[in-house]
Amino acid sequence: MTRLDAVIARLKAQRSALDAAAQALAGTPGHILELGLGNGRTYDHLRYLFPDRDIYVFDREIASHPDCRPDPAFLFLGPMAETLIAAAGTLGANAALVHADIGYGDPAATIENVASLGPKFPALLRPGGVVLCDQSLDAVAALSAIALPADIAPGRYHAYRRD
Amino acid sequence: MTRLDAVIARLKAQRSALDAAAQALAGTPGHILELGLGNGRTYDHLRYLFPDRDIYVFDREIASHPDCRPDPAFLFLGPMAETLIAAAGTLGANAALVHADIGYGDPAATIENVASLGPKFPALLRPGGVVLCDQSLDAVAALSAIALPADIAPGRYHAYRRD
Repeated sequence: MTRLDAVIARLKAQRSALDAAAQALAGTPGHILELGLGNGRTYDHLRYLFPDRDIYVFDREIASHPDCRPDPAFLFLGPMAETLIAAAGTLGANAALVHADIGYGDPAATIENVASLGPKFPALLRPGGVVLCDQSLDAVAALSAIALPADIAPGRYHAYRRD
Repeated sequence: MTRLDAVIARLKAQRSALDAAAQALAGTPGHILELGLGNGRTYDHLRYLFPDRDIYVFDREIASHPDCRPDPAFLFLGPMAETLIAAAGTLGANAALVHADIGYGDPAATIENVASLGPKFPALLRPGGVVLCDQSLDAVAALSAIALPADIAPGRYHAYRRD
């Protein structure tokens, strides 16, 4: 599998997981948290899937396409280890969905980031809320793994429900 | 179509076009020119498809993943408007394939770039050599449009053969 194959598989898995979560959450109220805006592609897909919900975005800085820039009122800028705690204070445990792309190219930095951020997710989610993540959060208390669509290869994406 | 949908469609079209070109060029000798290294994903796919051919890479600077960095002997660094002319002098018209991702986010800058670079391709290609490009090169003399695989939507990618 080349790096071109890998990115296609990763983006297709991401889209498939998001589309399935939108269907599964149709009856669950709550806002959406997007952790890692990047170029804004996933944010664009989230606002298509959840046109009537507030979408809050977390990132260190804004580097997205001009068409994919959230209103500043919905933006938490800065280190996520800090902004997630701030958001839990102001938004409470009211998110229906947390989408988190929190891996880096560097495996050691990824492990550290996941260990720092993952345990902060439950305080942001309502019971029954869903987490989709590019990294495993199996070690996080109060999150239970749930099935992903069958077209996603095992381990390529990760889904959890808030207990 | 969201930006996530669009990038998936673009990358799948690119891969499909590259895979088809590799089959079509099985009997045509010549090296490969990769214009625009970027993060190196396409370069990684090209060296998988053409393991026995020299692959020369053109970019302004190297920003690719460490695993996808060409040997410096195969690198033309600097403005492509200059390095393509230099390459025509040293390599001659001997490429079997030019793969060119030469569009920008800015449409006006893209038009200018294509107008500058496109006419320099024929001097690098052997007769029967193929150009795959994210932009239309219909206006370039000595290049004739050829069919792309049926799974690629019209206009999403562009293929030409050197007359």
